[in-house]
Amino acid sequence: MTSLFISILVSCTLTFFHTAEADTTPLPSWNAGSTKQSIVEFVEKVTKQGGPDFVPEAQRIATFDNDGNLWAEQPLYFQLIYAIDQVKKMAPDHPEWKTQEPFASVLKGDQKEVMASGKKGLMKILAATHANMTAEEFQANVAEWLKTAKHPKFNKPYNELVYQPMLELLQYLRANGFKTFIVSGGGVDFMRVFAEQTYGIPPDQVIGSSLKAKYEVRDGKPVIVKLPEINLIDDKEGKPVGIHQYIGQRPIFASGNSDGDYQMLEWTTAGSGPRFGLLLHHTDAKREWAYDRESHVGRADKALDDASKNGWTVIDMKNDWKTVFPFDQP
Amino acid sequence: MTSLFISILVSCTLTFFHTAEADTTPLPSWNAGSTKQSIVEFVEKVTKQGGPDFVPEAQRIATFDNDGNLWAEQPLYFQLIYAIDQVKKMAPDHPEWKTQEPFASVLKGDQKEVMASGKKGLMKILAATHANMTAEEFQANVAEWLKTAKHPKFNKPYNELVYQPMLELLQYLRANGFKTFIVSGGGVDFMRVFAEQTYGIPPDQVIGSSLKAKYEVRDGKPVIVKLPEINLIDDKEGKPVGIHQYIGQRPIFASGNSDGDYQMLEWTTAGSGPRFGLLLHHTDAKREWAYDRESHVGRADKALDDASKNGWTVIDMKNDWKTVFPFDQP
Repeated sequence: MTSLFISILVSCTLTFFHTAEADTTPLPSWNAGSTKQSIVEFVEKVTKQGGPDFVPEAQRIATFDNDGNLWAEQPLYFQLIYAIDQVKKMAPDHPEWKTQEPFASVLKGDQKEVMASGKKGLMKILAATHANMTAEEFQANVAEWLKTAKHPKFNKPYNELVYQPMLELLQYLRANGFKTFIVSGGGVDFMRVFAEQTYGIPPDQVIGSSLKAKYEVRDGKPVIVKLPEINLIDDKEGKPVGIHQYIGQRPIFASGNSDGDYQMLEWTTAGSGPRFGLLLHHTDAKREWAYDRESHVGRADKALDDASKNGWTVIDMKNDWKTVFPFDQP
Repeated sequence: MTSLFISILVSCTLTFFHTAEADTTPLPSWNAGSTKQSIVEFVEKVTKQGGPDFVPEAQRIATFDNDGNLWAEQPLYFQLIYAIDQVKKMAPDHPEWKTQEPFASVLKGDQKEVMASGKKGLMKILAATHANMTAEEFQANVAEWLKTAKHPKFNKPYNELVYQPMLELLQYLRANGFKTFIVSGGGVDFMRVFAEQTYGIPPDQVIGSSLKAKYEVRDGKPVIVKLPEINLIDDKEGKPVGIHQYIGQRPIFASGNSDGDYQMLEWTTAGSGPRFGLLLHHTDAKREWAYDRESHVGRADKALDDASKNGWTVIDMKNDWKTVFPFDQP
């Protein structure tokens, strides 16, 4: 009895110490190694008052891609899954969709045919599920979907498929005076529904692709109406443009995972003074997915080729991360 | 001698107490009265934890128009004066402007003729002075102008013609957990050059009219190029749209001075819960300017008509403000 008691006590004490350590060491879900070390060294040098690489707080801007970088993007971009789910939900009011592409393929569950409909087809799905409604109606739809929809592989709400090490990185940067932004090809109105609660990033620090909008007073009540016209495609060359329009200064830290992030990383790291480019390589087929050059989502080809030349730090998910998702944590 | 000494001492002590009081009482440059009182009451009720009107910090969004609201706008919008000054500076490289309108009128100093050239003429001036250059070149030009140009009436740099009571209001709101934004018809790239230093508002919290931009790599160096195409006119109906696109949530406090701010005030105060609309009426012909319904800048007509009906608080500059400009301070 006594030895069991002691053993429990020791085990509890060890757990206590383990937790205490995890709370004070930065980036606890990152394995020790050159990736983690280079991040910590960068943060320490830009925050060292009086040091040669010190950067004032007002210039500590960090930008993060979202899909495949803060949360997962397989088997399809989650926003596209949302759009497909919405088409199915709206179908009873649209009997014509049974024979109209790309809706017919969506309803049949023929993903390949949906993707084959190309940009034109996707714009039709986007217009049907993201436009011609007020911003408030759209937000309510997304919030409802996040509460009810489950990821096909993990059977968890989509906003639980976020990367624990990246949540820690966001917190670590903020604790060191950085202002953290999302700069994503995903829809800005879509991401703003969950970004604050999920990442601690307020709506005005979320930059994404957007539709045009108009303001009108309907029956005495002012509303913002989402229009079926593209305002900004916040991807590739669009990312530095989005950063310019929304943030108004060049980041000193950028984090992405695909060729869509190439220009954001390039724009960030080509500036003078200390700069950090971080590229997440999906190498973990067991805990997440392994994909890069040939992927239908988050293709990383040129970004991987040029990472070393451009001085970007590459995260090897399998080896650099102790934990992938929060629900995996011991 | 002794009595003079005591008199000096008393006077110093009184000055000391006066200063000490000014530092701790909110809004020292506002005269006591219903305007100041209604602002303070609003801030106190939305920050009162557990009170019926408490608003969490994340939702304490305050938006401010700039021209005629944070800084002056007479005799012309300062950005237009900048553009005119730039045309004059660039003229030696453009001999064709001597006969081309609206440039010829700008160079002759014929302001009336410049204004008569209308939207088309102003777009030509804008394209010549705001586009087809990199964002960094434009910023450098504006910074140089702010350092050298002087306001014709006050003979001070333009960014010293800011309203002391509004600087105090911005600080007061921020001290109470508000996030303060500029939402102006003025150019966003123009305002971002001075907004942080002048108002304590960082570039990403400045929303304004903007041109489209593109990203390109020139001789191995990435640049953002300003294009001669309108991206957003952040005025009238454009203000709630700008707020939606950039801030992503509805303000609870909005401050403006003209009909161009009507929709921002309407959008803000039509929301549920506690809301505050503030309209600055230029009534001080002596210390600033007196203008409203017939003005060529900052026209306030419908906004003044509907202020009472909409529950907006109107600032009477002459009577509500102890001081107008910081350089007027005793």
